Amino acid sequence: MPRVKEFDETRALEAAMHVFWDRGYKGTSLPYLEKAMGLTRTSIYNAYGNKRQLFEKTIDLYQKNVYGGLLEEIQLATSIKEGLRNLLLAVINLHFSEQTPGGCMIALSLLEKTQHNKSTSKLLDQTIEFVTKSIELHIKQAQEIGEISKDKDTQAIASMVVTTMAGMMVQAKAGVEKKRLVKIADTLVKMLEN
Amino acid sequence: MPRVKEFDETRALEAAMHVFWDRGYKGTSLPYLEKAMGLTRTSIYNAYGNKRQLFEKTIDLYQKNVYGGLLEEIQLATSIKEGLRNLLLAVINLHFSEQTPGGCMIALSLLEKTQHNKSTSKLLDQTIEFVTKSIELHIKQAQEIGEISKDKDTQAIASMVVTTMAGMMVQAKAGVEKKRLVKIADTLVKMLEN
Repeated sequence: MPRVKEFDETRALEAAMHVFWDRGYKGTSLPYLEKAMGLTRTSIYNAYGNKRQLFEKTIDLYQKNVYGGLLEEIQLATSIKEGLRNLLLAVINLHFSEQTPGGCMIALSLLEKTQHNKSTSKLLDQTIEFVTKSIELHIKQAQEIGEISKDKDTQAIASMVVTTMAGMMVQAKAGVEKKRLVKIADTLVKMLEN
Repeated sequence: MPRVKEFDETRALEAAMHVFWDRGYKGTSLPYLEKAMGLTRTSIYNAYGNKRQLFEKTIDLYQKNVYGGLLEEIQLATSIKEGLRNLLLAVINLHFSEQTPGGCMIALSLLEKTQHNKSTSKLLDQTIEFVTKSIELHIKQAQEIGEISKDKDTQAIASMVVTTMAGMMVQAKAGVEKKRLVKIADTLVKMLEN
């Protein structure tokens, strides 16, 4: 008979992700994880490995669920400008959502990079690279169909969007009001017109 | 006879600032501080108070020395555009300088805000507000002498600059090369032309 898992692995991993997202790697001690995941440390170890392995699994989940959801905003939009605006608004809404701790787990983890080893650092870098490349791909496609002029540097625009995403989350954590963040998003999208 | 301090208080505080900047609040344990500051924990307590009090003192020092130095770039420039470009380039250079841990201590501390109490959180928010207001003041002055058109939203531009500063530091920590960061700075400054 196969061993029956008595808990929802994905839901527990999501709970762990929220703790790291909220408190950072060093700020997350096992009791926090046990409480959020509703599991004993033995069950956590058995299902996900040690704290570092669990953390890396939450980065994968963040990339898939959070960034994946944000990038969908571009796919679903009818123009690149609408798509990028919706992406930035979704970043803002994600921060203010009561379902998330706010801020950005990847930005936080990158800024506290000294706490991480080579493997985790590489994973974090790759996550930013993945988001940037995904956005750039959409901008290139928009360029091909004439939505964005050919002389635009697609990598520079994509980097600027990712920079703004990260910077807005720092601003939001500093208590900057939503209205002002939306203005930042609009300012950036307006750039594309010029 | 006055008690003789046997160490340079400002230099030791700067060393503590670099540790927090590098490792974050929870990632900074006393042994790290003792080593960097060249002091025993008793001397640290006597001179600066507990870890939280020491941390708050390093925020003040960061605002004065780091942001103070960056904002000087605007004052020293001959135009607001040159000033903002120099400010952003100085942010990039600060990251790559071997004298600093890289990234931004305030951005990191804001993203790990859950680790802080109300007093520290307020201090962090005020630091971002101070930088934004300082930049906005320069933009307003430039607007008054006709360097920037009157219809521009000075607060939105200042917020965009601060957002870019923070976002660029996240990007830099993700291993994005200097050349690309400079391009982001140029892209932002170019916005002011339109």
